Amino acid sequence: MLTVSDVRFPTSLEQHGSDAMHTDPDYSVAYVVIETDQGMHGYGLTFTVGRGTEIVVCAVEALSALVVGKSLEEIVSDFRGFYRLLTSDGQMRWIGPEKGVIQLATAAVLNAVWDLWARSEGKPLWKLLVEMDPRKLISCIDFRYITDALTEQEALDILVKAQTGKQQRVDQMLKEGYPAYTTSCAWLGYSDQLLKQLCTDALNDGWTKFKVKVGADLEDDIRRCSLIRQMIGPHNTLMIDANQRWDVGEAITWVTRLAEYKPLWIEEPTSPDDILGHAAISKALAPLGIGVATGEQCHNRVMFKQFLQASALQFVQIDSCRLGSVNENLAVLLMAHKFKVPVCPHAGGVGLCELVQHLILFDYISVSASLDNRMCEFVDHLHQHFRSPVVIQNAHYMPPKDPGYSCEMLESSVQTHQYPQGQVWKNLQ
Amino acid sequence: MLTVSDVRFPTSLEQHGSDAMHTDPDYSVAYVVIETDQGMHGYGLTFTVGRGTEIVVCAVEALSALVVGKSLEEIVSDFRGFYRLLTSDGQMRWIGPEKGVIQLATAAVLNAVWDLWARSEGKPLWKLLVEMDPRKLISCIDFRYITDALTEQEALDILVKAQTGKQQRVDQMLKEGYPAYTTSCAWLGYSDQLLKQLCTDALNDGWTKFKVKVGADLEDDIRRCSLIRQMIGPHNTLMIDANQRWDVGEAITWVTRLAEYKPLWIEEPTSPDDILGHAAISKALAPLGIGVATGEQCHNRVMFKQFLQASALQFVQIDSCRLGSVNENLAVLLMAHKFKVPVCPHAGGVGLCELVQHLILFDYISVSASLDNRMCEFVDHLHQHFRSPVVIQNAHYMPPKDPGYSCEMLESSVQTHQYPQGQVWKNLQ
Repeated sequence: MLTVSDVRFPTSLEQHGSDAMHTDPDYSVAYVVIETDQGMHGYGLTFTVGRGTEIVVCAVEALSALVVGKSLEEIVSDFRGFYRLLTSDGQMRWIGPEKGVIQLATAAVLNAVWDLWARSEGKPLWKLLVEMDPRKLISCIDFRYITDALTEQEALDILVKAQTGKQQRVDQMLKEGYPAYTTSCAWLGYSDQLLKQLCTDALNDGWTKFKVKVGADLEDDIRRCSLIRQMIGPHNTLMIDANQRWDVGEAITWVTRLAEYKPLWIEEPTSPDDILGHAAISKALAPLGIGVATGEQCHNRVMFKQFLQASALQFVQIDSCRLGSVNENLAVLLMAHKFKVPVCPHAGGVGLCELVQHLILFDYISVSASLDNRMCEFVDHLHQHFRSPVVIQNAHYMPPKDPGYSCEMLESSVQTHQYPQGQVWKNLQ
Repeated sequence: MLTVSDVRFPTSLEQHGSDAMHTDPDYSVAYVVIETDQGMHGYGLTFTVGRGTEIVVCAVEALSALVVGKSLEEIVSDFRGFYRLLTSDGQMRWIGPEKGVIQLATAAVLNAVWDLWARSEGKPLWKLLVEMDPRKLISCIDFRYITDALTEQEALDILVKAQTGKQQRVDQMLKEGYPAYTTSCAWLGYSDQLLKQLCTDALNDGWTKFKVKVGADLEDDIRRCSLIRQMIGPHNTLMIDANQRWDVGEAITWVTRLAEYKPLWIEEPTSPDDILGHAAISKALAPLGIGVATGEQCHNRVMFKQFLQASALQFVQIDSCRLGSVNENLAVLLMAHKFKVPVCPHAGGVGLCELVQHLILFDYISVSASLDNRMCEFVDHLHQHFRSPVVIQNAHYMPPKDPGYSCEMLESSVQTHQYPQGQVWKNLQ
């Protein structure tokens, strides 16, 4: 049995999550629960920002016909085939393919399948992945359309090579955790005073890497970047994020004006579809020491392949709910490794931190074996609605210990935030 | 008032429309009717192939909140702004942006708005466009993300320059029509005997350009291409279409094996998202005299921009329902002209011929002023369900005369084909 719910949080009331393109987000999820005949549960979700969540819910319902009736064993014994079944249905692929609503729905469904799989093995997902035979891992990936950049054999070689030193890295992660940066201090809608307060608190809590939203107004950006740089000092790390606000030429001009604040990267300078545009921006900003980061709206492995082929990004920002779940993220992690580009996941939203921490742990332990220029986004919102919320210690993600993919939400949170019938929304009417 | 219907035709029963990736399409539409307070109607649609149409319908319902309550005058006096409103809603853009389900829904809604506008002026859409002041045309286009390839001024210059000789081209089109090619002879699921029969009939009807579906089985493709080439002789034109079946390397190898049948183009050799892949294929096939054509699943102007920048296609196949209606198609026609690449629209499906004929007439009369290497796809299916079906004479599209965008379907057709409650579907249960 598969059920799906439209769950929304009224975050727009306080400008949490506001950026240059999404000025009033109500952080939301299409929330999937799979129940097997044996009474086991798998929980999955995809993140949205309010209106339109009902469309993703509708897409999950359409995909559910391809899932219900299959056993977990049947699915994971040919996960590549099952992935292809969902993404290449002879009729539904027309409304994608592998992009937008239908890909978000695919992610929600497959995240629930992976959660179920990890629970059935009694392991947190990162551990399931880390301990899985490399051949089995490879068999979960659909290599269609990427073999010109990464063959199955090359992928296997990467995984086999990274077996060396694996246990050491597991131990290191269990002890230190994975480095994180914070986006919680400087949403676009926040006042300078709030920004200062949050920044002070974050520094006290041990944070050393900070992201600032930019792109709406240049003078405003200069003031905010200057303020943050003053607050954090010259040695901490600053990143800026424009959320697709600019055209190519404009991006170069604008970021050049902010170069004196020494941002490590400019994130999403322009359309997420514009590979060649990002390549042009990368080339123009390289002499200033500023990299380009993108990925949270990069919709599939074919796009990431080209971003890598064209040297159009210097930081790969995978997203646990935009790509086709773990399966497609594995493909992107392996390609990024081959092209020697660090992965710095997108997180935040609802549950994105909970999910993506598993993927980046796997990346370090079983793929990249490096922490150079690597860190995972953290946003301190809405974790209280999860059964196994992220644990951050000294600005590091501590590896989750509960079995599964950390997707399960509290039943009470789901009930009260259902849209439009939940109590939270009724109270707002 | 805006209403939307899920209308499906059980075409899979006879393998009409079958190709290497869509083996059992039920040609469908999300069908939109706008009714103004004054009782005027605008009809619009987007094409789908069966399952999933209900998701697009759901998306249209979500977008309708942005349309209902606005007057036509209000919309068209700032059409660029209205386009941006639909495609960049601060919450809904997350589930696109400008791609997949939400972009198909945008097309359906805006196609209805353009139909309404043309009707209100008492002109067929192509004439509305051809007679519109160039500045007004430009004001309908959202140039966001394409200014590095085409500025407003360049677009205006193109339109102004093409005013010369315009009336002559109008007269020519009214007399001769716009050249077409046929895809109706060689769907993948057709038997050789049916293929021969249809080809003979088409030759008798004056057709000179034929497209064959390939990509499922090489030996089968060789037999079918050989058969068609024999039937049509050396001087008629053959095109082949793989519907995204291959990886990059495979595409090059496979098409090279079919080169002796002298296809003008290979259509959709690989993923519609793979700009760099198409560029590699274009480069490899150029010495064989075979071009690359793509576009029916190219989801927005940013993608077309890059295909043009990267010399990744030699034929631009716009689609009236995949891109954001006339507004976004105008941007692509103008970019194609700047990059000197001919436009050969995708058509077929349900209503795509009816719609796109308006765009290609505009392209010839007001943009390209050329018929070199240009032709519009024609598929002879389902036209009987339209109020003003296409008129083909001697393998040419004859310019429509009725006011509007030719989207209006017969009420009886809509009623009987509604899914799942229409009589046609009830009878199939």
